Amino acid sequence: MSNRAAVMTGIEEIAFEQRAEPLPGPHDAVVRIEAVGVCGSDTTYFRVGRIGDYVVKGPIVLGHETAGVVEAVGAEVTNVTAGQRVAVEPGVPCRNCEQCMRGRYHLCPFLQFLATPPYDGAFLEHLTIDARSLHPIPDSMSFEEAALVEPLSVGLWACHRADLEAGDDVLVTGAGPIGIVSAMAARALGARDIVLTDVSESRLELARSMGFETERADAPEPDRDFDVLIECAAAPGVLAAALRRLRPAGRAALVGMHKEELVGIPQSELNPQELTIAMVNRYAHTWPSAIALVASGRIDVKAMITHHFSGLDDIAYALMLGKHEPESLKAIVNPNA
Amino acid sequence: MSNRAAVMTGIEEIAFEQRAEPLPGPHDAVVRIEAVGVCGSDTTYFRVGRIGDYVVKGPIVLGHETAGVVEAVGAEVTNVTAGQRVAVEPGVPCRNCEQCMRGRYHLCPFLQFLATPPYDGAFLEHLTIDARSLHPIPDSMSFEEAALVEPLSVGLWACHRADLEAGDDVLVTGAGPIGIVSAMAARALGARDIVLTDVSESRLELARSMGFETERADAPEPDRDFDVLIECAAAPGVLAAALRRLRPAGRAALVGMHKEELVGIPQSELNPQELTIAMVNRYAHTWPSAIALVASGRIDVKAMITHHFSGLDDIAYALMLGKHEPESLKAIVNPNA
Amino acid sequence: MSNRAAVMTGIEEIAFEQRAEPLPGPHDAVVRIEAVGVCGSDTTYFRVGRIGDYVVKGPIVLGHETAGVVEAVGAEVTNVTAGQRVAVEPGVPCRNCEQCMRGRYHLCPFLQFLATPPYDGAFLEHLTIDARSLHPIPDSMSFEEAALVEPLSVGLWACHRADLEAGDDVLVTGAGPIGIVSAMAARALGARDIVLTDVSESRLELARSMGFETERADAPEPDRDFDVLIECAAAPGVLAAALRRLRPAGRAALVGMHKEELVGIPQSELNPQELTIAMVNRYAHTWPSAIALVASGRIDVKAMITHHFSGLDDIAYALMLGKHEPESLKAIVNPNA
Amino acid sequence: MSNRAAVMTGIEEIAFEQRAEPLPGPHDAVVRIEAVGVCGSDTTYFRVGRIGDYVVKGPIVLGHETAGVVEAVGAEVTNVTAGQRVAVEPGVPCRNCEQCMRGRYHLCPFLQFLATPPYDGAFLEHLTIDARSLHPIPDSMSFEEAALVEPLSVGLWACHRADLEAGDDVLVTGAGPIGIVSAMAARALGARDIVLTDVSESRLELARSMGFETERADAPEPDRDFDVLIECAAAPGVLAAALRRLRPAGRAALVGMHKEELVGIPQSELNPQELTIAMVNRYAHTWPSAIALVASGRIDVKAMITHHFSGLDDIAYALMLGKHEPESLKAIVNPNA
Repeated sequence: MSNRAAVMTGIEEIAFEQRAEPLPGPHDAVVRIEAVGVCGSDTTYFRVGRIGDYVVKGPIVLGHETAGVVEAVGAEVTNVTAGQRVAVEPGVPCRNCEQCMRGRYHLCPFLQFLATPPYDGAFLEHLTIDARSLHPIPDSMSFEEAALVEPLSVGLWACHRADLEAGDDVLVTGAGPIGIVSAMAARALGARDIVLTDVSESRLELARSMGFETERADAPEPDRDFDVLIECAAAPGVLAAALRRLRPAGRAALVGMHKEELVGIPQSELNPQELTIAMVNRYAHTWPSAIALVASGRIDVKAMITHHFSGLDDIAYALMLGKHEPESLKAIVNPNA
Repeated sequence: MSNRAAVMTGIEEIAFEQRAEPLPGPHDAVVRIEAVGVCGSDTTYFRVGRIGDYVVKGPIVLGHETAGVVEAVGAEVTNVTAGQRVAVEPGVPCRNCEQCMRGRYHLCPFLQFLATPPYDGAFLEHLTIDARSLHPIPDSMSFEEAALVEPLSVGLWACHRADLEAGDDVLVTGAGPIGIVSAMAARALGARDIVLTDVSESRLELARSMGFETERADAPEPDRDFDVLIECAAAPGVLAAALRRLRPAGRAALVGMHKEELVGIPQSELNPQELTIAMVNRYAHTWPSAIALVASGRIDVKAMITHHFSGLDDIAYALMLGKHEPESLKAIVNPNA
Repeated sequence: MSNRAAVMTGIEEIAFEQRAEPLPGPHDAVVRIEAVGVCGSDTTYFRVGRIGDYVVKGPIVLGHETAGVVEAVGAEVTNVTAGQRVAVEPGVPCRNCEQCMRGRYHLCPFLQFLATPPYDGAFLEHLTIDARSLHPIPDSMSFEEAALVEPLSVGLWACHRADLEAGDDVLVTGAGPIGIVSAMAARALGARDIVLTDVSESRLELARSMGFETERADAPEPDRDFDVLIECAAAPGVLAAALRRLRPAGRAALVGMHKEELVGIPQSELNPQELTIAMVNRYAHTWPSAIALVASGRIDVKAMITHHFSGLDDIAYALMLGKHEPESLKAIVNPNA
Repeated sequence: MSNRAAVMTGIEEIAFEQRAEPLPGPHDAVVRIEAVGVCGSDTTYFRVGRIGDYVVKGPIVLGHETAGVVEAVGAEVTNVTAGQRVAVEPGVPCRNCEQCMRGRYHLCPFLQFLATPPYDGAFLEHLTIDARSLHPIPDSMSFEEAALVEPLSVGLWACHRADLEAGDDVLVTGAGPIGIVSAMAARALGARDIVLTDVSESRLELARSMGFETERADAPEPDRDFDVLIECAAAPGVLAAALRRLRPAGRAALVGMHKEELVGIPQSELNPQELTIAMVNRYAHTWPSAIALVASGRIDVKAMITHHFSGLDDIAYALMLGKHEPESLKAIVNPNA
């Protein structure tokens, strides 16, 4: 069994190597990887070598938006069997700590997460992972769609953290992939008006093609207010301005990670509105709902895909795609193609 | 201005009369009624003269699922203007009591509700009502759709009361109009599997044509469990059996009104599952979201309509439609056609 | 090391035997038992041999309200050390299933629970249990108080399930130990008026001595309504009558286990009030708060104790205490005294 | 009837005048004022003339923490009668807007609030106010306690906004009156450890005398973490540092109003903890619970009172008390004494 992997060996450096044949532990499964989405965090690790406190200190395989076919399972695995098509939830929690026992496994301090240093990811042919992170998908769902269940999960969880209710008017700042999936999630959960903002006209055009309303972030903002803010831009000043557009009792979910150490919020001005600001760290418990929403056609994640890469050879280009092709939105790599 | 009204003057008796020209009070509006849905409660009042403690004691105009065009407004009305197309929320709360101040205006003990004794309803040409009960609709929405925002609101509120979350598997017992709108609402709020049960094959067929799964209520039930139950059948034994199909921490919303004084729940058997049972009384705050979901095409309430009646002349037939045509589901009357 | 145990060998039969010296597994601890409360469920197993689907099929050690001193710990135990005084949470969940991962470990289908067939309990000198079920207590807290953290947890969780908020008026039906701890919990969480009902004058007198209001359950009920019901009586007709006393949007937590298969609720009558009925299955995550509330003096669980038993010899009498001494409320056994 | 009032006529200027005899409108009551607490906001208006967007533009009567005896009621008043002792809730909402109808009357854009420009307050002999803002108090409660139901309400609402649950460890930054009532509220709602921080040793000493733990805000902070933060200091850097001490899924309620336009939060650092930050604007629905907690002895608001003033003559001194007597905490004025 070949197990070729694309390994980041330095800033903007990829080497290819054969990894050992994967041997699943008793709770593990081996998955033949059929699709991997390229995420902005992959690109940041590749170009900068760190995200916040997570620092790339040695060779690492990137890629964590992924799906494939189960090839083998360990002795104690009961939830999947060889041959099953699955979407991969990239985090493996300890199942023992206070956070896990509280139902917040995504906040587990021992979480092992694909492509987050020091853990390897999915830009390889065969992935070994705890089988409990695998979610079977229906035959009607493509592997590409299944890989994009991961970013969609971010959008769903952001809506959850914002206590989004049917009928809410939603402002999404930033129309990159995470802004788009947040808007898609909001629509699938019953939001009323959904407006995306960005400085990129091509991104706004894509958003409009999906049926969303848009605003240019660099133009004077219209006099329009919202119940919910999903902040995905993380650009200076965006958060404060967007918070000011929330109605009384409005709710904001912070998804984008700001570069500044401290981000300013107009507290005294907004306290009378009694806003609630929820920080967002990935997701929990979202795969079943995300799979159902995609499989039933209520969310069309495919519409985000602008580029495909067969095999791993062009992975460096794929990781730098936003630089080479600014109008790209989401690339999918198939390591086994 | 003609103001012909269809008045229930006794059990299964209708008389037509001209009502006085409506004069709006300072907070009122006059609405030219363009569509009225016939509800099961209208039929029950017409055939039996009472629902629970609400007893028809004199002539009454029935009909409370309605929409039309604003013709005139009182001096203090600011939210609508003459000429606007509106959906009518049929309840007018006191805005003063503890329930109103708690945000639960639908539980206001002083609520005035169309076609609930002693208050008249909408089977007439011109309705006078507090303008704050009127919700403008977009041009793209038909009056029929706007009238059906009322039953859809019951479905949305049932989902709310059941704490429905994205990904929940939902069992809806009873595939009449309220079961159907509950299923539609659940889908629009992100539910995963949605199964409707009924004894009527024609109703199940209609449900399947809308994309829902179905079960015959009089056949052995499959071994399948759910997160949420929306109980709309109110038939003997249905509730207890359906509660037994809920998963741990499952939630049930009780919408249907049982004829028996006491309805049995298998408490000792189900306490270990820690179910939550929520009673449902109409709705609150649902018009904006219901209008948005219909206007955007996420919910197709039109699919429920099986019969239309132009003018009020056939109102007695429309009120007895279920008896005359068992395969009917929802009739719409246009008093001004 | 002696490990004498009181073993139920048949209906109302106790035998004493020496159990093997406890050997903790890697995650286990051995606890020298210093106090065990006698619970109504112990008595029911002893007199009837079953509770619902849980059937005593062989010799069993009863007792699950307990506290003691850690004597030894397994190799992987980190949360407690030998010598520590601890309260014992009697359930050991699998930490792997959907319920555990959702934060609902008390609904784990694989839960191993002290003194629930087929698992042995704490009427013995030394208990071996997963160390993660042990909660250190301050020196100021007695072992008796620590043992009663278990029933208090039921009361706290019942309040949680009833969504009890500060200022709620609370009706507690049944003034036995669980009714009492529910009332204590409600007071410690900010409830306003708290009324206990029972047919036993001695229980009501005890409740009044703790500062609660009371009503005779067999007298005409006063015209008084409530926001929250905590149902601990499980006597015929009590639930329906108590539900009728709830205000609009009232919430009921069902704790008592009814003997009847089906318990009647006046659904059509109460749906307009939009009540919520929450079933209650023990508790989750309550030990830290219960310990804090007792240790700080905000809850005086000691006031419940009416009888003490030194050593295990009188365990049969203790288990039948309610029969022998009807005015008893809670007995504490010290197996090592 | 005399109706002497202390009127702020300029920065740090008070004039006394006789106001017209109060004539209640149909929904109003006249209250003989027996106690008024001096709040920091009164002092700020008196010394600076503004708080945020609220600017003193003409003569104004300050004082909004108040209680007294009903002297007369308007024709439509039903909730109180002449002679009743009452606590005064200082806000009068419109009961008509979206916020009011959502149960959030404290966010009503038309709220009339005592001693908030341009509305007069309670430093006078007789106050006319909407009777629905009056809450009867038991005979056992003093007027001083009843006046302090107002600041206590801020503490209760802050706990509500922080989703405080039994067992939470709570950090309160700032041990002024609002920090103190927040800590008192947290304890009455079942919090576990409660730690107050301040730079004033006298305030910390007072907090300790009430049974709370304390930390010097200007000393190195201990390595200790919390579930809930109630921020009442509004001093530079305090919020960011305190947020860093919250556990995963921690919740912060922002009560203090910062002088800076933008307050920095370490967003990227804290997003992985998934904190929730809730802004706080006064309170809603708190009087019944606050009265019950004080009346039952669960909260001792009297312990906050350090100074009393009989009559209105010393009002200027009372408003500047913190400057004259730095160790003061709360002054009570009785305009009719």
